[in-house]
Amino acid sequence: MNMIIFALPGNEDLTDKLAIYLKAEKGKVTIRQFPDGESYVQIHSDVKDKCVVLVCTLHQPDEKMLPLYFLSNTAKALGAVCTCLVAPYLAYMRQDKQFHPGEGVTSTYFANLISSFADTLTTIDPHLHRRNSLSEIYSVPNRVIHAASHISKWIKSTIEKPVLVGPDSESEQWVSEVAREANAPFTVLEKIRHGDRDVEVSIPDVAKYKDHTPVLVDDIISTARTMIETIGHLKKAGMKAPVCIGVHAVFAASAYEELNNSGVQQIVTCNTIPHETNGIDLSGILAQEIKDLMNHHA
Amino acid sequence: MNMIIFALPGNEDLTDKLAIYLKAEKGKVTIRQFPDGESYVQIHSDVKDKCVVLVCTLHQPDEKMLPLYFLSNTAKALGAVCTCLVAPYLAYMRQDKQFHPGEGVTSTYFANLISSFADTLTTIDPHLHRRNSLSEIYSVPNRVIHAASHISKWIKSTIEKPVLVGPDSESEQWVSEVAREANAPFTVLEKIRHGDRDVEVSIPDVAKYKDHTPVLVDDIISTARTMIETIGHLKKAGMKAPVCIGVHAVFAASAYEELNNSGVQQIVTCNTIPHETNGIDLSGILAQEIKDLMNHHA
Repeated sequence: MNMIIFALPGNEDLTDKLAIYLKAEKGKVTIRQFPDGESYVQIHSDVKDKCVVLVCTLHQPDEKMLPLYFLSNTAKALGAVCTCLVAPYLAYMRQDKQFHPGEGVTSTYFANLISSFADTLTTIDPHLHRRNSLSEIYSVPNRVIHAASHISKWIKSTIEKPVLVGPDSESEQWVSEVAREANAPFTVLEKIRHGDRDVEVSIPDVAKYKDHTPVLVDDIISTARTMIETIGHLKKAGMKAPVCIGVHAVFAASAYEELNNSGVQQIVTCNTIPHETNGIDLSGILAQEIKDLMNHHA
Repeated sequence: MNMIIFALPGNEDLTDKLAIYLKAEKGKVTIRQFPDGESYVQIHSDVKDKCVVLVCTLHQPDEKMLPLYFLSNTAKALGAVCTCLVAPYLAYMRQDKQFHPGEGVTSTYFANLISSFADTLTTIDPHLHRRNSLSEIYSVPNRVIHAASHISKWIKSTIEKPVLVGPDSESEQWVSEVAREANAPFTVLEKIRHGDRDVEVSIPDVAKYKDHTPVLVDDIISTARTMIETIGHLKKAGMKAPVCIGVHAVFAASAYEELNNSGVQQIVTCNTIPHETNGIDLSGILAQEIKDLMNHHA
């Protein structure tokens, strides 16, 4: 079946790359807002009997849902066989249970909504916390891409003497995996609690790593609080300025400026959310998974 | 069945009035945004086995859909029997057909989305243009309230010597109806086309109405272009400064300031969208229709 790939506003760069990898036609679409705030959608390309790929990363998701939903509906009305969502960053993964009575479990509701109009979903490192797989909430065929090995490769080829640093014991698994593939050592901050507000933080083997470049890695950099705190501990311990790596450059409010001013050497993110720090390109592996998932038609 | 009524953010005043008319419990809810732009919903009231009314007017609709959808889902998850949407202003009524090839018929898609999570819909003067009734697109039970007689009443009790003025022949039916119920005369602008760009506009019987207060009425005041143009013609003809009445105070961008500076005596709207011009209260009739529609449970 022929594939045609559309960029929702802001996803043009990644879509161009994917179109080349996929040897797919690039679709032409107008998506704009009327003065009263309503969205308008017009597809200029022929989508009849084609597999339509919609590229729409989902940070700041609320304002993006109607245009995406409308575009999917419009493509179907014009004869598209399917609409396949590529959302490099997937929203609403955090509220995956009722932490307090009366809360809405938005990750489930959001998944139901997406699954109601998209036929497949491809995404990168969704924030799976208490859930083992996307399929627990998404009813449509889906593929999840892990950025870890690509981050490892980037570290290996770019940083001379890296040491991966995990902010806490929870991060150990993820940090140790990236470190192993990068052939780099790692260390995880230790917290010794002397009282409610008296927490001593120490860096194991710190003397060994004084001439290394500390590398902090996280899936989402949102408020950047954890990274900024960790950087403070590294500084106190006399370590070099660190490189901060995130998969998803969410950067809520002024988080990017704050992280940038906290004494980092460099901030690098994957191109799942367009941002000036995008330095690790995942379009190749993304294209591969989109192609594989196409087999749901076979 | 017990009814509990919730205000989405910005709908608190109307919800308070409706709760009093309906003698209904007012629900407590927290709806807020995380720093990354995702919405959070928590219902603090008991909704189990109750009919849940959600008050959410839908101007600037894109950003409102997810919180509304989440609140409806949360109420259902907590045992609500139904979630009944009260949207005094209903969005996405204009794109009701493909005017150009490839366009999305958003009024249908939007109606399908609303109908997928709300069990009933109550609204005021939706912009039905090429459609005869809401039920052509909304699959859930619905009630439509007409503001005309309430506007007539307001004119009758407030303006001494009113003359209703319609901007064009299309408006004649609506203007004549309001005029009749207000016991007021009406006139409709006549356009005589001398050429492509040479259109002469005249006001029939203008001499008769020099000491009257012209009253302009429209369902939606969005860009206010038509009203501002009409005001120019009235001025040229030597008529008094008019009163402008709208059902829905959409006021796109700087439309309100422009209309206000165009030589009006007063701008008055119904309280379907919170705005400083709200002068005609429709909460009584709205409550009545919500109550009537409750009978879908019977």
